[in-house]
Amino acid sequence: MKVLVLGSDGYIGYPLTIHLLKQGHEVYGVDDQSRRRRVKESLTPILSAKKRINYLKATYKNFIDQTGISLGFNPPTHIQSLLGHFNPDAIVHLAEMPSAPWSMKSTIHASTTQYTNVLGTLHLLWAMHFECPSAHLIKLGTMGEYGTPDCDIPEGVIPKGCSVPCRDNFDPDDPAKTIRSVVKCPMQGLLFPRTAGSFYHLSKVHDTLNIEFCCRNWGLRSTDIMQGIVFGLGEADKGKELTRFDYDECFGTVINRFCVQALCGVPLTVYGEGGQTRGYLPLKDSIQCLTIAINNPSEKGEYRTFNQYESIHSVNELADMVSNNSSYPAFIKNIPNPRKEAESHYYNPTNDSLLNLGYEPTTDMNAEIKDLLRKLSGYKHRINEEVIMPKIKWV
Amino acid sequence: MKVLVLGSDGYIGYPLTIHLLKQGHEVYGVDDQSRRRRVKESLTPILSAKKRINYLKATYKNFIDQTGISLGFNPPTHIQSLLGHFNPDAIVHLAEMPSAPWSMKSTIHASTTQYTNVLGTLHLLWAMHFECPSAHLIKLGTMGEYGTPDCDIPEGVIPKGCSVPCRDNFDPDDPAKTIRSVVKCPMQGLLFPRTAGSFYHLSKVHDTLNIEFCCRNWGLRSTDIMQGIVFGLGEADKGKELTRFDYDECFGTVINRFCVQALCGVPLTVYGEGGQTRGYLPLKDSIQCLTIAINNPSEKGEYRTFNQYESIHSVNELADMVSNNSSYPAFIKNIPNPRKEAESHYYNPTNDSLLNLGYEPTTDMNAEIKDLLRKLSGYKHRINEEVIMPKIKWV
Repeated sequence: MKVLVLGSDGYIGYPLTIHLLKQGHEVYGVDDQSRRRRVKESLTPILSAKKRINYLKATYKNFIDQTGISLGFNPPTHIQSLLGHFNPDAIVHLAEMPSAPWSMKSTIHASTTQYTNVLGTLHLLWAMHFECPSAHLIKLGTMGEYGTPDCDIPEGVIPKGCSVPCRDNFDPDDPAKTIRSVVKCPMQGLLFPRTAGSFYHLSKVHDTLNIEFCCRNWGLRSTDIMQGIVFGLGEADKGKELTRFDYDECFGTVINRFCVQALCGVPLTVYGEGGQTRGYLPLKDSIQCLTIAINNPSEKGEYRTFNQYESIHSVNELADMVSNNSSYPAFIKNIPNPRKEAESHYYNPTNDSLLNLGYEPTTDMNAEIKDLLRKLSGYKHRINEEVIMPKIKWV
Repeated sequence: MKVLVLGSDGYIGYPLTIHLLKQGHEVYGVDDQSRRRRVKESLTPILSAKKRINYLKATYKNFIDQTGISLGFNPPTHIQSLLGHFNPDAIVHLAEMPSAPWSMKSTIHASTTQYTNVLGTLHLLWAMHFECPSAHLIKLGTMGEYGTPDCDIPEGVIPKGCSVPCRDNFDPDDPAKTIRSVVKCPMQGLLFPRTAGSFYHLSKVHDTLNIEFCCRNWGLRSTDIMQGIVFGLGEADKGKELTRFDYDECFGTVINRFCVQALCGVPLTVYGEGGQTRGYLPLKDSIQCLTIAINNPSEKGEYRTFNQYESIHSVNELADMVSNNSSYPAFIKNIPNPRKEAESHYYNPTNDSLLNLGYEPTTDMNAEIKDLLRKLSGYKHRINEEVIMPKIKWV
């Protein structure tokens, strides 16, 4: 299969590219190097972008090339030309600004986030419409699109199976009487309402709506991945295939930050009460799931949502797990929450679609964290403690 | 009250500005003249922007000034400075790209629409957060955000009153049994799902989500207007207070286009089967409703939605009304629908909020249309027939 990986120099994009090359797919990469410009140095000693390209070309005959197009900031004709030239079967779109705190920093950061993500994806959608309308778009969204509603979270749309008093038989004077008639929820099949918690999360919701429309209107096909929070290093834990590892306030996710704090011997900083509950998955599971999506395309005109995570934990549970698995003394410290979010809430999403397609989740979180701590210990001397503590506030 | 009108040179913005000035409000206008650049000539012979400003200054002592800031394309500091300087109590935001066909024309048109609307409004929200967090934002959305779902359309959020089998007691093997237990719909209070039908309509949904977040996160206050399709001329049907009138494919709404077609003696072109059903309101009702919203601000931190329309009609009904009220022979012709939309569908929105606040709708659509045809007949010689027929296709 010909796969275009957008964001192929990134935390997920680089190991995904290698995984797809090993599977025999032809891979073309696109990356504008914005993460390398925004983060001084990855904790892991990774190759330069140029050396990575040379390495991939020398090692994998099915690696075509990597180019520096920015979907949002280059003229839309650039990505359109590339699609016309490469004619991909699948496009994995990981080339978005991924940070909630970064998006809350200032007008310009919010604006740049929504511009990069929403306009960048819009340019891609038009280019697909013109050049490769049958290609399968696998787009990285986030579980954070849903927020933390006080109800179960389905995969993308309001599911079948709800029965409510409908418009034909609802009696406001006596709802109990009306309800005897079992009818389907009239909102069944509509997109499940999103309640995003930052300008970054909002940008992903905007993408969702734009992509769903393009499938409905133009007949494009897409799998929209609502991904949980990814942590860890990939299968390649050293050498030329090693992926980047961020641990700063903006681009470091919580487990990765906790592990770095444990290594430094500084307290693991839990934001607020620590009851915030989310879905998590190790990097290798993200790559497994994305590969499953690539190998099982949606139908023409189909917009499909996968909730992609392995297991659900509160921040307190994560801090305990990191602390318990650390060979260094690791204390936990609650600090004022820089974000505005529920610190104690109901959370019950589902992730059936990927499981039904054969996703075999990593189930031992403790083993994963222990292994990550071990791997990271080799890079302890490269840690810059100053970038970890939160400075960006939501309000 | 100090009111900032964004889009004060527009079809609604100019007569609204005058209405607010007559009510005694201090009004500051903002308009980047993009409509004047994009549409060669208004059917109505309106003053130049400069002459309008001079006229308003000479006539109304409470008219402060009008400036040419573009929310999206000027640096965000421009609108921020203006807010700091004027310190408005209310901001009426009409300064968006309003055309669905225009947004479907090309990559650049789609991109410009979403950039102008989403990024422009985002810049405004940040500026409000910094300079006037207590000001009331009255933002123009569209009834088109909802699309045409097969269920009743509430005002913005999933309403109270739905009872469904909830997560605690739902038995998938025997739903009929489960339903005896009456519990509230678990999605109650979440945003009602949107199903937009163009990149323009999508931009309005993105705005909705960004604004709702800013109310929730920063405590801004907003009334988000889901407006039906506006038609007609304002109270001032001639002279210096006359508003612009567009009848082209992009910026002319359906009733306005039909009236111009009737005047030319060409067939009224109904797209497809003509069963498309929407809410409509005359321009004077739009101004009445916006004024009600200004005079009844939402609470601090409150995000509130008003569905704003007078009555609901199919396109076929509108064509018949225009035809019946025309003194020229007016034929109706169905042409292939350039849009992708349901041509026969359920449609049952509500507009209680504005009615509860005292909105007195114009109820005689026939009289309004007759009056509009009479007013427009004086401008018949200015009509350019070539701009009416649709050339932009959805697919």
